[in-house]
Amino acid sequence: MAFLPSWRPGAAREAITSFLDESLALPPDQRVAVLDNDGTLWCEKPNYIQYDFLVRTLHAAVEHDAALGDRTEYRALLDGDRAALGELGLQRIALALLELCAGWTPDEFAERVRDFMAAEKHPGRGAPYPKMVYQPMLELLEALRGHGFDVFIVTGGGTEFVRAVSRDLYGVRPDDVVGTLVEYHYEQHGGGPALVRTAQAQGEVNEGWAKVEHIQTQLGRRPIFAAGNSAGDREMLEYARAAGMPSLAVLIDHDDAEREYAYASAAVTFRDTEPITATAGRLGWSVVSMRDDWSVIFPA
Amino acid sequence: MAFLPSWRPGAAREAITSFLDESLALPPDQRVAVLDNDGTLWCEKPNYIQYDFLVRTLHAAVEHDAALGDRTEYRALLDGDRAALGELGLQRIALALLELCAGWTPDEFAERVRDFMAAEKHPGRGAPYPKMVYQPMLELLEALRGHGFDVFIVTGGGTEFVRAVSRDLYGVRPDDVVGTLVEYHYEQHGGGPALVRTAQAQGEVNEGWAKVEHIQTQLGRRPIFAAGNSAGDREMLEYARAAGMPSLAVLIDHDDAEREYAYASAAVTFRDTEPITATAGRLGWSVVSMRDDWSVIFPA
Repeated sequence: MAFLPSWRPGAAREAITSFLDESLALPPDQRVAVLDNDGTLWCEKPNYIQYDFLVRTLHAAVEHDAALGDRTEYRALLDGDRAALGELGLQRIALALLELCAGWTPDEFAERVRDFMAAEKHPGRGAPYPKMVYQPMLELLEALRGHGFDVFIVTGGGTEFVRAVSRDLYGVRPDDVVGTLVEYHYEQHGGGPALVRTAQAQGEVNEGWAKVEHIQTQLGRRPIFAAGNSAGDREMLEYARAAGMPSLAVLIDHDDAEREYAYASAAVTFRDTEPITATAGRLGWSVVSMRDDWSVIFPA
Repeated sequence: MAFLPSWRPGAAREAITSFLDESLALPPDQRVAVLDNDGTLWCEKPNYIQYDFLVRTLHAAVEHDAALGDRTEYRALLDGDRAALGELGLQRIALALLELCAGWTPDEFAERVRDFMAAEKHPGRGAPYPKMVYQPMLELLEALRGHGFDVFIVTGGGTEFVRAVSRDLYGVRPDDVVGTLVEYHYEQHGGGPALVRTAQAQGEVNEGWAKVEHIQTQLGRRPIFAAGNSAGDREMLEYARAAGMPSLAVLIDHDDAEREYAYASAAVTFRDTEPITATAGRLGWSVVSMRDDWSVIFPA
């Protein structure tokens, strides 16, 4: 099989292959790779896929209980009221949506996520959701594993949401996903102990410095490879780079309006904000142009 | 190689081999095994091994700063004052000892743990600490892996302490250890992001129902096999058993005063406390008699 077949020759491909070659000299315990999910492994536009799932859950819930539509956040979603949604803000919307899943067991939640992924189509491109992963990144995961890396997903999204599909989409074990957690309620049923979801987040949202902290607490090893696409990945990419040599930080630049979406993330620096690609330049990360470096974006 | 060579024929060995055979019919994602560490995989008497490490750390610290000896908890430890230690209680002692490691990086901590394990001898038996693991349990880990299980350590001890040695002693990756966590302090140095230990525990001590919750949040799959030896493992063992069939809960009974230590743990039930072996009988767990079921205890 060809090596990284969807990666065009260029600086990004070269940085990756050099890094992989050098890493072979390291003990296995040091070969640790962490990758963001939304916008790094799969498409995050026009909405986060988890957001689509929760909105779908809302529609199903309202069919059973119309009174839900009276709630401000749900009303705005059901009406597609962009002005109201903008005013409420994504975080308040997301927390309201998570309440819909309170009381579900982990198994119920995972099953509903899998049903959603199997049945629904991506609103922007009309493709099944499992086809919204980036083909070149699947090849990169394969190359990392082929070089003895333990590969982890470190996502700002819900841990359980990504775990429900990580094995099928990426070949990543559920426990190798680190994301934002919900609190569980522990119950003793007749049949033994059981857990059900609450609507509360547990600890910090997994973005920025929290990604670094959760890599230590949940994985316990320092990555020497990190990939991301947004300001929320900055600290994780810096952390990998600061691990010494060889190390590699990869930033996916969404610059392909035709085949995917063109948009930019801004990083907060010590004096101002700057495009995350400029941060990458200053800090010696490898920037991947989706337009120039990838011959295909999505799997056939 | 022989299968479970240190397990004598009997009910315990039979329950394990039947369970392993039946598990082969399950999809790989369901083959999840969790094992306690102290008293289940390695010896926990006369002290927890982590406790020995921390007391050793105290002795080294006092050499540099004699004033530490003025602190009540440290004084009692340095004097070996059993009455004072009993009055202070293990938890207060342990927290005071953890303060000695505040400010260390994760790498420093892991290195000191490994140095300790390599250099020191077990006070009860005079053997090197790495020889204080139970040979039959190493064989069980091997058998589980041979049947396609993902094997995790779920310990009440410090996550980072066990991670420092889990690969060498048990062939378990650091991220496959779930224990009690410390809080980290996130710092930006000149060279990039860094983490240092604080003296605060993060979240719940990993015992009892917390083990069940952390299995969900950190691993995300329900175990069908669990092994433990104390009341702190009860909920985890019940959780595995309640997963449906096939499932197996194994309780190690420390009944071998000659070759190891003889002691009993008590479980709190809905009306009273009872020996954990009685709980095991009521709930259909397999009880392993170290005296009768194991032909050897420690590796040669």
